[in-house]
Amino acid sequence: MKTRHTKNLITVALACMVVFMTTNAQAADPLASWNDGAAKQSIVGFVKATTETGGAKFVTPEERIATFDQDGTLWVEHPMYSQVMYCLDRVGALVKEKPELKKVEPFKTVLSGDREAIAKLPMAQLEKILAATLTGMSTEQFQAEVKQWIAEAKDPRWKKPYTELTYQPMQEVLRYLRGNGFKTYIVTGGGQDFVRVYAEQTYGIPSEQVVGTMGGTKYGYDKDGKPFLTKEPKMLLNDNNAGKPEGIHLMIGRRPFAAFGNSTGDKQMLEYTKAGDGARIAMLVLHDDAEREYAYGPAHGLPDTKVGTFTEALYDEAKKNGWTVISMKNDWKVIFPFESK
Amino acid sequence: MKTRHTKNLITVALACMVVFMTTNAQAADPLASWNDGAAKQSIVGFVKATTETGGAKFVTPEERIATFDQDGTLWVEHPMYSQVMYCLDRVGALVKEKPELKKVEPFKTVLSGDREAIAKLPMAQLEKILAATLTGMSTEQFQAEVKQWIAEAKDPRWKKPYTELTYQPMQEVLRYLRGNGFKTYIVTGGGQDFVRVYAEQTYGIPSEQVVGTMGGTKYGYDKDGKPFLTKEPKMLLNDNNAGKPEGIHLMIGRRPFAAFGNSTGDKQMLEYTKAGDGARIAMLVLHDDAEREYAYGPAHGLPDTKVGTFTEALYDEAKKNGWTVISMKNDWKVIFPFESK
Repeated sequence: MKTRHTKNLITVALACMVVFMTTNAQAADPLASWNDGAAKQSIVGFVKATTETGGAKFVTPEERIATFDQDGTLWVEHPMYSQVMYCLDRVGALVKEKPELKKVEPFKTVLSGDREAIAKLPMAQLEKILAATLTGMSTEQFQAEVKQWIAEAKDPRWKKPYTELTYQPMQEVLRYLRGNGFKTYIVTGGGQDFVRVYAEQTYGIPSEQVVGTMGGTKYGYDKDGKPFLTKEPKMLLNDNNAGKPEGIHLMIGRRPFAAFGNSTGDKQMLEYTKAGDGARIAMLVLHDDAEREYAYGPAHGLPDTKVGTFTEALYDEAKKNGWTVISMKNDWKVIFPFESK
Repeated sequence: MKTRHTKNLITVALACMVVFMTTNAQAADPLASWNDGAAKQSIVGFVKATTETGGAKFVTPEERIATFDQDGTLWVEHPMYSQVMYCLDRVGALVKEKPELKKVEPFKTVLSGDREAIAKLPMAQLEKILAATLTGMSTEQFQAEVKQWIAEAKDPRWKKPYTELTYQPMQEVLRYLRGNGFKTYIVTGGGQDFVRVYAEQTYGIPSEQVVGTMGGTKYGYDKDGKPFLTKEPKMLLNDNNAGKPEGIHLMIGRRPFAAFGNSTGDKQMLEYTKAGDGARIAMLVLHDDAEREYAYGPAHGLPDTKVGTFTEALYDEAKKNGWTVISMKNDWKVIFPFESK
């Protein structure tokens, strides 16, 4: 008995050593894809300040919350948000089930494939497409549909699945923060149920740490009496602009210590984060690299856009409030994980 | 250098051994306050089945979700829910700020202290009290008010703070599940923001793992331009009955493997949990111990109640669906943590 006990202890001790040595080896540079500069320094300095035991800005592990916008902050959002591509793609499946929709707007225009006409659809018509493709089914059916799409759909420029078009430097930030005891959350204007389908595999973020635009569900029973939830066309919270701090309070109940975004829709989340005591960082990704990714603003004289707008006013607010602007062009050595392989 | 490295490794190894041996010592009986019987066996069997690597019913750590109703499941709910006591107590502070309310119903009745008259207030009047005491202030002010009350208020029977009237056997279940990689959630009809104030200290459950009745907040700025959230009298989700699985989907996005409740308001959460594949447990606490706590049903011929109703129909459904009914009288050696000290 004593011998087995001793053997157990040795096994545990050896396992611990392996963990210890691996950690040491990886510690070389957790932000290897970042060029040295203010942005990288800001992140490293923040982590050191908040995790230094006994330090003036130490943050207890349970309070270590970091929030990340998704579209344009963690992955590519141009020429159009992936979820909108999903909804447009789903129209095809939808008219197979309901052929009468083929001749009805806005479905007719979407089926025509005429991109210019689709881009010109008014908001009320777009909302019809969102309602038809994102609600009315069970939560499990929706998950299965998104899972299949995300595995098959490809970005038109890189001809790769959307989930491969995440930003390597931001993946490093996620891992670096988690390695230092932070809980990483996605706080996205995208649909909460949509993003949850791939967040764990793509970012290492579990479904309960995805805060997004929230729709209601309705509890009911199938013909065999088995309960299920149906996705309802009822918006509980629009997780954009002021909705981001509201969503953070609802889902987390704590103020983040770090927040990352890239557009005017992230302004309030960054303000809310920086308004807390102690060390807080707020950072904005500026898409200024037309060659390796995209360039849009209109801040800094970059082309104007309706998808992920970064205005001059946002740029001024960042400067005034001590937020850090990340230049994709200057701060990032590589953009995508597949470049480093 | 090598010597220091070796010393470090030995230190780490020794630390690991201490953890290992402590764990072994505690492993004696994680459910020491439970009498041997079907309820205890059900919990232990569930944990063994879901955590046995390679077992047919193994559940990956990220899927290990357990949900607990609070009032009547984790702590005392009679003679009245603690949050209702809070709202009634707050009326005093409220009329100090707004003396004109003194002569207005329902505040006048509450201030009279006439318990029978208070108990007879119609729902519409009660809702006025809830709205006046739970909304209209900043989230931070509300947290401060609840924190102070919970530190000072005492239960009328035991003359102890409400937070000391948690059930020791359920505290053991929480720790036992967490020790086996489960994330434990509160899923309560009580206000989410209210329960979050004390959940970490009382149950070891962080604010982001409290799912409750959810009110909206509104983002704004104070006179110095500092952002804050105001609690709005707008219900986003009533986390009772069908609202429990809906709230679980909204906040967690996964189906629980274990669910614990004590009243008809928990029925749908238990159904939803048991409808999943693999090993799932659903358990209901029956308050059948008038001597050590309270006795109410009306199931099993126990006195009828409006606070935490456990109907005969719920009892029948439990039997039919393989849910376990926990008898406080027969299954629990002690009720409260202070009894074992």
